[in-house]
Amino acid sequence: MDLDRYIRDIPDFPAPGILFRDITPLLENPDAFRYAVDRMAQRFSAISFDLIVSIESRGFVFGAPMAYSLGVPLVPARKPGKLPSETLSVTYALEYGSDSMEIHVDAIGEGQRALIVDDLLATGGTMSATAQLVERAGGSVVGCAVVVELSALGGRDALAGRRVESLLIY
Amino acid sequence: MDLDRYIRDIPDFPAPGILFRDITPLLENPDAFRYAVDRMAQRFSAISFDLIVSIESRGFVFGAPMAYSLGVPLVPARKPGKLPSETLSVTYALEYGSDSMEIHVDAIGEGQRALIVDDLLATGGTMSATAQLVERAGGSVVGCAVVVELSALGGRDALAGRRVESLLIY
Repeated sequence: MDLDRYIRDIPDFPAPGILFRDITPLLENPDAFRYAVDRMAQRFSAISFDLIVSIESRGFVFGAPMAYSLGVPLVPARKPGKLPSETLSVTYALEYGSDSMEIHVDAIGEGQRALIVDDLLATGGTMSATAQLVERAGGSVVGCAVVVELSALGGRDALAGRRVESLLIY
Repeated sequence: MDLDRYIRDIPDFPAPGILFRDITPLLENPDAFRYAVDRMAQRFSAISFDLIVSIESRGFVFGAPMAYSLGVPLVPARKPGKLPSETLSVTYALEYGSDSMEIHVDAIGEGQRALIVDDLLATGGTMSATAQLVERAGGSVVGCAVVVELSALGGRDALAGRRVESLLIY
């Protein structure tokens, strides 16, 4: 299936000069959505993992049905202040300033293997911070699955040494 | 299945005096997560609907696997500024101040029937605003499905006349 048909280009969002790749048409087509979810899982079908870590908030849209379909635990990685219990936190640099990602401190056990799922890989800052969270919790990262990869932004390099699978590369 | 076993009480979150009902243990148990997703769908199995509207961001965790499982379109309802294309917006009152919800203006067609999905029903402000968005787009709301209902906060009354199905009532 040509998933590119279900990605809409929005110029100048969220800021002038940026071409935003909008996944909402894909979500609105049940066949394309199912195909995307199943393909992301299939790319890692030969690798054993214990849980899915899904990144707020569009990552939830793909990570949750993957966890549902595969029957594995779903661990949310969120922005600061959103998770109610004790958290681990990793701060990462943005173009201007910084941001953080958090997971619950008890969400990942020692030695557990995690697949990280998000909708988009851009600079890799969020994905890399989430991978560090998994490792700080005592787990390991088997790979990162995304729908869309913006290759010019160098996310794959920022995740050097980690397996990255994307369904669409722009 | 006794889903209550998978909800964790967190005192004083996000503010002193508030008892937060944490769904993350449910997400981390594949059997409980599958049961919750399937039960929410089952409650509306006798009613025909065309799409699921899922509310940012914990609503995505349940709405996305429901859409995946049922094979219906998934429409995200989000906070202002998150959706990249032209939106409809509804503003609603909070205890202090106000907030808004948005959907893409082209996400719901005239006469389409929507099931709204979120994780939690509290005061009903977000759910009610989302229902108004569906109707403003020309659609209708067949009902609202949530995992947890906080009955003391009166969300069901705020949605008077709409069908509300919750798996757990506190």
